[in-house]
Amino acid sequence: MAHKLQNMLADVPSDIDIAQAVEPLSIKQIAEEAGILPEELMLYGDTKAKVSLSVVQRLASQKNGKYIDVTAITPTPLGEGKTTTTVGLSQALGAHLNKKVFTCIRQPSMGPTFGIKGGAAGGGYSQIIPMDEFNLHMTGDIHAITAANNLLATAIDTRMFHESTATDAGLYKRLTTNKKNKRMFSPIQVTRLEKLGIDKRDPLELTEDEQRRFARLDIDPETITWKRVLDTSDRLLRGITVGTGPKEKGKTRETGFDIAVASEIMAVLALTTSLEDMRDRLGRMVVATSFAGEAITADDLGAGGALTVLMKDAIMPTLMQSLEGTPAFVHAGPFANIAHGNSSIIADQIALKLVGEDGYVVTESGFGADIGMEKFFNIKCRYSGLVPDCVVLVATVRALKMHGGGPKVTAGKPLAIEYKEENLGLLEEGCSNLRAHIANARSYGIPVVVAVNRFHTDTDAEIDMIRKAAREAGAEDAVMSNHWARGGEGAAKLAEAVVEACEQPTDFKFLYPLDMSIKDKIETIAKEMYNADGVDYSEEAEEQIERYTRLGFDNLPMCMAKTHLSISHDANLKGAPSGFRIPIREIRASVGAGFLYPLVGSMSTMPALPTRPAFYDIDLDMETGKVVGLF
Amino acid sequence: MAHKLQNMLADVPSDIDIAQAVEPLSIKQIAEEAGILPEELMLYGDTKAKVSLSVVQRLASQKNGKYIDVTAITPTPLGEGKTTTTVGLSQALGAHLNKKVFTCIRQPSMGPTFGIKGGAAGGGYSQIIPMDEFNLHMTGDIHAITAANNLLATAIDTRMFHESTATDAGLYKRLTTNKKNKRMFSPIQVTRLEKLGIDKRDPLELTEDEQRRFARLDIDPETITWKRVLDTSDRLLRGITVGTGPKEKGKTRETGFDIAVASEIMAVLALTTSLEDMRDRLGRMVVATSFAGEAITADDLGAGGALTVLMKDAIMPTLMQSLEGTPAFVHAGPFANIAHGNSSIIADQIALKLVGEDGYVVTESGFGADIGMEKFFNIKCRYSGLVPDCVVLVATVRALKMHGGGPKVTAGKPLAIEYKEENLGLLEEGCSNLRAHIANARSYGIPVVVAVNRFHTDTDAEIDMIRKAAREAGAEDAVMSNHWARGGEGAAKLAEAVVEACEQPTDFKFLYPLDMSIKDKIETIAKEMYNADGVDYSEEAEEQIERYTRLGFDNLPMCMAKTHLSISHDANLKGAPSGFRIPIREIRASVGAGFLYPLVGSMSTMPALPTRPAFYDIDLDMETGKVVGLF
Repeated sequence: MAHKLQNMLADVPSDIDIAQAVEPLSIKQIAEEAGILPEELMLYGDTKAKVSLSVVQRLASQKNGKYIDVTAITPTPLGEGKTTTTVGLSQALGAHLNKKVFTCIRQPSMGPTFGIKGGAAGGGYSQIIPMDEFNLHMTGDIHAITAANNLLATAIDTRMFHESTATDAGLYKRLTTNKKNKRMFSPIQVTRLEKLGIDKRDPLELTEDEQRRFARLDIDPETITWKRVLDTSDRLLRGITVGTGPKEKGKTRETGFDIAVASEIMAVLALTTSLEDMRDRLGRMVVATSFAGEAITADDLGAGGALTVLMKDAIMPTLMQSLEGTPAFVHAGPFANIAHGNSSIIADQIALKLVGEDGYVVTESGFGADIGMEKFFNIKCRYSGLVPDCVVLVATVRALKMHGGGPKVTAGKPLAIEYKEENLGLLEEGCSNLRAHIANARSYGIPVVVAVNRFHTDTDAEIDMIRKAAREAGAEDAVMSNHWARGGEGAAKLAEAVVEACEQPTDFKFLYPLDMSIKDKIETIAKEMYNADGVDYSEEAEEQIERYTRLGFDNLPMCMAKTHLSISHDANLKGAPSGFRIPIREIRASVGAGFLYPLVGSMSTMPALPTRPAFYDIDLDMETGKVVGLF
Repeated sequence: MAHKLQNMLADVPSDIDIAQAVEPLSIKQIAEEAGILPEELMLYGDTKAKVSLSVVQRLASQKNGKYIDVTAITPTPLGEGKTTTTVGLSQALGAHLNKKVFTCIRQPSMGPTFGIKGGAAGGGYSQIIPMDEFNLHMTGDIHAITAANNLLATAIDTRMFHESTATDAGLYKRLTTNKKNKRMFSPIQVTRLEKLGIDKRDPLELTEDEQRRFARLDIDPETITWKRVLDTSDRLLRGITVGTGPKEKGKTRETGFDIAVASEIMAVLALTTSLEDMRDRLGRMVVATSFAGEAITADDLGAGGALTVLMKDAIMPTLMQSLEGTPAFVHAGPFANIAHGNSSIIADQIALKLVGEDGYVVTESGFGADIGMEKFFNIKCRYSGLVPDCVVLVATVRALKMHGGGPKVTAGKPLAIEYKEENLGLLEEGCSNLRAHIANARSYGIPVVVAVNRFHTDTDAEIDMIRKAAREAGAEDAVMSNHWARGGEGAAKLAEAVVEACEQPTDFKFLYPLDMSIKDKIETIAKEMYNADGVDYSEEAEEQIERYTRLGFDNLPMCMAKTHLSISHDANLKGAPSGFRIPIREIRASVGAGFLYPLVGSMSTMPALPTRPAFYDIDLDMETGKVVGLF
């Protein structure tokens, strides 16, 4: 049962020490209390379990609970405690206000966990536990994504290799001869026949021309957008030449690896609504175009079914718990700058049914509201049909001072004195950033509550200044929250404000309709969300817009890949910048996930390790068998 | 409880149809019947569970059961049913002879599963179920290995990158400043100080020379033996150039990916005996040498602890079940040609305790006895201290006819008529291969039982000829086994012969002592096991032998990477070849796993996909949610 934390220490210990000091409840108990039936639960040890999608059908007649999105102002590179707030708010709602509650958050990438960031389970007395399970393999979802992504990658390269070395007849014969040496079309090949308008189903009946059309995908290597992925921060893999081995006949190609959580399959996992829908999305993912300009899909490569099989367990969200015993779903991935960075629709759907009409589902969208929240509304809510009841905007004194002109904040370097002492001047200046995000959030017709995530150096005058600015800018309320140091108790006032905001009427609207042109959609986001004067497109982006429009992909929403360190495209522009134009360098199409992916300036899709990565501190204590040094 | 299969069909259905027609018992029931306590079990759903190593301590006073290794004659490329025999024999012992029994087999690689081979859970009425769980992610062990391997790979390349761009002082300062901005050595850095003979523990006290020695690993890129891995058959990754991205400052390097199951970490998993031992092995893995010729280890790179954390669940074997409800451990990986290809010591240790004095543990070593069994004895049994009681040598009429000069056998092509009709002439000639393997196995002082794995085209006269040849060559017995078509019932006579053989006295001896020179060990294996006249070394191999001897790695056993399609190094030489010399192209050092790894001729460590990979048939049935097309 949800339980208030006891014996919290004034000198807050490290995240892993806190997490390991609390004995988690059995996940079976968490599930039972959340209303999940034993047959809907797939245990992974005593502290994690996957939950079946069938819950939604079983509870179809149940009304949904209230739906809360936690987002933030533009953060410093250190992050402003959005996950911590999400968990602390949930603990307050569940263990202190005695509401039914569910937290829906994303699984972190092990790249940053072992690199620069450390864990992502929240922090202090507001965490998902066991935090080591959360931060490591969890239930293998990211590994499944990696396996599926890379199976498709080798399918592309190997097919090109075989097409380049075989005659039409030889290629066709091999493609239509199964393992038992029988000539036949497999069901996935029938899909391709249908696409080509060929209605024959006996491989021996196709004309030579039909055989050639069926067998030759004729992939134009210059158009391949599918990269390999790893859940490892490996900068040397950003750009690679493949095929340099002695047996590959000189078939080299320039490509690279992305971090797995930024992959299209991760986005499919987050945005899918059922097993059937996932099968369709995985099959229609476009990896390249042919020399004739036609889109080549995963199903054309024969892989859509196998990808679905690889993802059949990953589609179930993982149930875990907070430090105060409230239930949490962990599902899909982070990186809202280069991905859409929201947790899964499926987790939210199940959770909203489980908490029911009087309950609360607290989810989180990545980084600042200009990116994570914008994508939450315009991509995730569009595909789910769910309407949020409240936005919680996390702000910190530290970040607002930075926006007001404070010294640079860098991970791994000491904070300047301005951040440790009261400085109302910097703070007042920096509230421009807060106001811009509140206005953005309000424009969707949803009430906004500002959560001022308290650090121990913050003064009351500073907190009050933020609260006043927030209310003046249209927030329903602005509340100091001390959940990091005090758990749910520290977020109780925030929770009360959220409960009240959820009673306000909403008038939810998307920022743009899907039938706008690609450029109009990008420009609407740029002007309305970023306050840009306009958009400049590279030659490559212009060509891609033309190609995607011709292929009918122009009716998809936009998933902007943009720095999270400014509302603009330039990480150095703090506060609420204006008078700039944003550059679109390239646009990728994630047709299966269901969005176009414009790259605003130069965005890396593979992080790097620092000189002294976090893994230097991580080990297993041989006495206790526990993980040490993960924070 | 172990139960005899009912309603077997004379026309044996496909593997997945058989597997899905049997409702698996709850894995909790399997565990309970095997004597595993609830607190020793970590469930992964209802059909898989990991089992704690603490079983061995709890049952320390229990005597071990009988220990049986299943191996084979030199197979055709289709395989001769070794896993199927292993499972069928176990089913016979458990469900028909009512013995306590455990099967210990390896987790397959998804590379071949989606590529050319299909599943590896056994076949027909002798399988581990659920076969789709077995063949897909299972409990994530291979994913953990992949993550650990690639974390170390990026640690190497990123460290070289940082060393190339930093001053001594800058590099040292960054390496000794932790996330909280404190100057300190982490425990793993203290390990390096100890290696360097520096007894200071305050970073500020080191002299400039000590700082440089500590901070600069000075890795010679030409000596890096650590490659990245994926569990995907991706031939284009065999050779790659990394670092071609625009931000990597031209730091390109030639390297490549291996299949994950052939990685050193997989070998560590198979050969380790405890958590502490695994931590040591992972830390002392050698990835390269410095320009000064010193070995650079995972711990030098600060990664040994993190690798252990990534592998902390993988070290526990996964409990599954056979079609007849007997328990099975699935642990470690295949590919005995390029790896050592045996399942884990830990699984065998736990299983031998659980079955106890009157029980039987049936394990399998990969491919033919010249490679898998040789490594089982000289590497695995050496590290475990366990002594086998019986070797089961699987033979087929098909393979022996091939050895007698029959037409080429190729996967995906129809078998020639010689293999479908009685042909005693070819068979008699081919028995040379059987005799060679029996002699090899007998030389270790262990009784041998030949299992003739029956195919439906085999005639009684053919079976009798093999049985006679086997007994004349020194086998205790030779028994026809029809477990593929009949499950445990079909292997009951084989099981009786094995029980009898296990009562024979053994006189187990290794083929070579560890204090022999590297060349003497290789030549002993070449002459005694392969019947070669001698060994030829490439210039590279000569240099490596010199280097490894200088570094003290010459006292390790040898893990020969050799074709499995001939007792010799040449896949075309069938039967029992003689009059050849084997070429050693290269020798790698797997210091953490604990062996040297001579490559006999040209061995690929990354498989390829065929033109029509197995994944064309694989999909999820949306009506039932079941996997189809996996076989």
